[in-house]
Amino acid sequence: MKIALGQINTTIGDIDGNVDKMIAFAINAKQGGARLIIFPELAVCGYPPMDLLLKDSFIAANLNGLERLRESVTGIAVLVGFVDTNPGDGRPLFNACAFIDGGEIKARQYKTLLPSYDVFDEDRYFEPAHEYVPITIDGISVGLSICEDIWNAKQINTKPRYLIDPIERIVEQHPRLLVNISASPFSTGKEHIRHDLVRNQARKHGVPVVYVNQVGGNDELIFDGRSIVVNAEGELIARGNEFTEDLIYVDIDATDDAALQVSNGVIRSSSDDRTVNSYKAVVLGTKDYVRKCGFSKTVIGLSGGIDSAVVAAIAVKALGAENVVGIAMPSPYSSQGSLDDAQALAKNLGMEYHVIPIERGMNAYNDMLAPIFEGTNRDVAEENIQARIRGGILMAISNKFNYLVLTTGNKSELAVGYCTLYGDMCGGLAVISDLLKTLVYDLAKYINEEAGREIIPKSTMEKAPSAELRPNQTDQDSLPPYVVLDGVLQAYVEQRRKPDEIVRLGYKPEVIMDVINKTDRSEYKRHQAAPGLKVTTRAFGFGWRMPIAQRFKETVGQETYQVVSK
Amino acid sequence: MKIALGQINTTIGDIDGNVDKMIAFAINAKQGGARLIIFPELAVCGYPPMDLLLKDSFIAANLNGLERLRESVTGIAVLVGFVDTNPGDGRPLFNACAFIDGGEIKARQYKTLLPSYDVFDEDRYFEPAHEYVPITIDGISVGLSICEDIWNAKQINTKPRYLIDPIERIVEQHPRLLVNISASPFSTGKEHIRHDLVRNQARKHGVPVVYVNQVGGNDELIFDGRSIVVNAEGELIARGNEFTEDLIYVDIDATDDAALQVSNGVIRSSSDDRTVNSYKAVVLGTKDYVRKCGFSKTVIGLSGGIDSAVVAAIAVKALGAENVVGIAMPSPYSSQGSLDDAQALAKNLGMEYHVIPIERGMNAYNDMLAPIFEGTNRDVAEENIQARIRGGILMAISNKFNYLVLTTGNKSELAVGYCTLYGDMCGGLAVISDLLKTLVYDLAKYINEEAGREIIPKSTMEKAPSAELRPNQTDQDSLPPYVVLDGVLQAYVEQRRKPDEIVRLGYKPEVIMDVINKTDRSEYKRHQAAPGLKVTTRAFGFGWRMPIAQRFKETVGQETYQVVSK
Repeated sequence: MKIALGQINTTIGDIDGNVDKMIAFAINAKQGGARLIIFPELAVCGYPPMDLLLKDSFIAANLNGLERLRESVTGIAVLVGFVDTNPGDGRPLFNACAFIDGGEIKARQYKTLLPSYDVFDEDRYFEPAHEYVPITIDGISVGLSICEDIWNAKQINTKPRYLIDPIERIVEQHPRLLVNISASPFSTGKEHIRHDLVRNQARKHGVPVVYVNQVGGNDELIFDGRSIVVNAEGELIARGNEFTEDLIYVDIDATDDAALQVSNGVIRSSSDDRTVNSYKAVVLGTKDYVRKCGFSKTVIGLSGGIDSAVVAAIAVKALGAENVVGIAMPSPYSSQGSLDDAQALAKNLGMEYHVIPIERGMNAYNDMLAPIFEGTNRDVAEENIQARIRGGILMAISNKFNYLVLTTGNKSELAVGYCTLYGDMCGGLAVISDLLKTLVYDLAKYINEEAGREIIPKSTMEKAPSAELRPNQTDQDSLPPYVVLDGVLQAYVEQRRKPDEIVRLGYKPEVIMDVINKTDRSEYKRHQAAPGLKVTTRAFGFGWRMPIAQRFKETVGQETYQVVSK
Repeated sequence: MKIALGQINTTIGDIDGNVDKMIAFAINAKQGGARLIIFPELAVCGYPPMDLLLKDSFIAANLNGLERLRESVTGIAVLVGFVDTNPGDGRPLFNACAFIDGGEIKARQYKTLLPSYDVFDEDRYFEPAHEYVPITIDGISVGLSICEDIWNAKQINTKPRYLIDPIERIVEQHPRLLVNISASPFSTGKEHIRHDLVRNQARKHGVPVVYVNQVGGNDELIFDGRSIVVNAEGELIARGNEFTEDLIYVDIDATDDAALQVSNGVIRSSSDDRTVNSYKAVVLGTKDYVRKCGFSKTVIGLSGGIDSAVVAAIAVKALGAENVVGIAMPSPYSSQGSLDDAQALAKNLGMEYHVIPIERGMNAYNDMLAPIFEGTNRDVAEENIQARIRGGILMAISNKFNYLVLTTGNKSELAVGYCTLYGDMCGGLAVISDLLKTLVYDLAKYINEEAGREIIPKSTMEKAPSAELRPNQTDQDSLPPYVVLDGVLQAYVEQRRKPDEIVRLGYKPEVIMDVINKTDRSEYKRHQAAPGLKVTTRAFGFGWRMPIAQRFKETVGQETYQVVSK
């Protein structure tokens, strides 16, 4: 029996489009000789639907979509994720998998483990499964699970998050094959964790596992695909593309009572490098956000610095040079070198480029504010005005020409608040807001290597980073060196380490506490940040939920360090 | 036996401050003759702590705080909410209530029902209780529950959200008194729902109920207090203040095996009017947000319109006139009447007031953008520039003088996107973003009535609302009359009704679909909005979680209406 994995890119709420796509994939798979095609979690409505799930009309449209799929697909069985209603007590919905065969919905398996951490909110909507529904296809019993259901295995959790392991329950029914439909978002390194998890489940239970993941960007989340099939020994038999749709097959043979034989799978290449993975992820995330929001063109402020250069290169890769407009907005504090670098970048990328000096705007603000600012010294207020004029210009261009503004801030800046709310934070999508500055440099190098020529100008990569908001300013006037800053941030933000633990990594207590204090104090800025593409295990954004008006302070040992900052 | 209800206003993360406050309340209650004082849910760390709960150091500090409370309070027993760790499998924490008596923690009861809807995320952090721990004080058995635990009663839910009702389990142990510690946020009308709920629980089980709620603003949430005690017949015996801290008492008598007698409670007055409740709520929310964020002064853009006038009056009530600065920023499209109204308002409120004309800024933007805008017509781009210049001026003043900018947009605007991102949406707190425009008018009337004189100028209340971003503009050029708009929004946003249901309320299908389409398309603006004070059952903000890049469209019947809008 041939099984197809339909690794598709759905759009949330585009139920007609998603069903059309599944019908087309099913027809292809049937022509490819498959007896069954498997689609990802909630493929009918797209994942994550969030509070659209609270609309009865959304649930009804999703059920109609499932009906249309059932009626339209003939000659091949389908496993597909959808939202089912819960007529009983408890939460109103189920995260469900339908088994469609012979024009009938033969079974509905619900999800047991509902992730409610990081970016996940499934307890908000769904009642967990209370039973397991075995299905049989051509005499082969198949155990169904949905995404998180395979993640509570003791072998990967020192302390299981849930009190039950649904896979243990499912294998009590002696399925000969396990299928898991997923919508598992990308973060760097996660492909290995997933692979190990699936392999371990197969080995532990002596059953092959087919794992089908969705692909594509949905707001902050990027799904990398990489659906896999492993045999009962845990050997990799098939793997789908990374970061693009795919339709792959495996053959299943049930010759005797021993484990099923799984064969003839294709194993697509999978990047194994943090830089490459991050780059491919944000390219896909940018492409899908722009497209799924209904935009075609984008506009980016080009400072001549590394962040905007990398964002422009990502945007050109994602959307084509004809859909990316660069605007340099020099002030009297901008160096000629920066302007030259911005221009060189735009030329290297082949994108439209304009220069709009902002001095007139600065003078106007100075004049307007002169009476109220009389007797005060120049400070961060004047610096922020420059950033806000630039933001205003980009938004005016956005409003006039219907271009989406791409925000260029990196994660290091967003962490410590080295960015201007309503200034450089303006935009519809923050492309690199989950990439620490040091990783942005790695991406720049990779972009040039991949192109085989200079895309990001060498001088952009080599000069000292500067916001150029006052004469001779560099980022390191206000911040520790980026290698230190990023080391502390990785420990504090991504690994959730305590200050004392970070000290043991070799950083100075006063530096650690300065970084932590700056990070904690910048919550109000992040609260109003553009949605940012998630590439790490912990991004600022939907999965980072901190109160703003709060007083908690961490310390190194018993000591509190004074904040020294601009 | 006298019992005290400690209805306190905690600050999230200010564990020392919260514990100090509880020690002071406990000493007062002891002097008042109380045998027991009861504090709200998570009173040690403040509610809602959100992702601070993911920090081990936060949990440790909270446990240290509980220890200090235990050691410091003598001669009176305490019930208090805190976060406990879960050493077993499952989620890492418990939402807990400690019973402290005689210097010992005698019992810990955990919360069973973990709300995960609207603004609540408790499944993200907590494992539910798996058992009920009866406590006894002076021979009286008391059943403990925490907030949501009393909300799954069949009599208030046609379809219970949870499969168990913990109160049913607790009463199996025959407690003679039920205590519930809560952090139940305000929304208009909720005081009646709560009162009915507590009364019904008492009647159903024939047991008096002591319900202790927290008070105060924490980011978007406003807790109104109004702790109550009802006797076994459900009669109201005591009620705490609305919107301020309180320490109230009741006497409990256990003369025989019949129900306990509850007496000698004070019943504070409770407002019964949507306008008055909303007003008191946002005054408290503003006061606490500003104070808990460490600000003292605020700045507001005064347009002469009703929204900024009401926000200024709220701010003056909350913070005092000396802490509110008004800035009028007229453009060539501003009427003299608007400028006069702004000035009159500032004078009526006794607040500092400045006029900063923005024409120079507009000219500068025109000049800067002339090359790229050449050949285009004036449109919303130019209108938004004006709003963004104003936002930039307010932010510059904020940066220079460390004033918090209060945002003045109302819920009707925020719903349909009749507001400018990075323009009039700038600010640290959106004071009236959960008040529909019609309710803003009601507040204006009430503010003048309460003052017994004209605070909000009559002409502000009587003129046609206008953004004054082009000549002779009024809001109704782009929007339906506010009474219609607000009716549709209340049905669509707050009551989650389908378009077909809204038609049955008497609104025209094309108007309904225009409002719905505008609302759905404005998600990207709300994503970057300032935190806004929640006063209704459904506010935009943390409890409103919609995807941005999505395609779901609702219809009236089968018909799709074309959007007609700017």
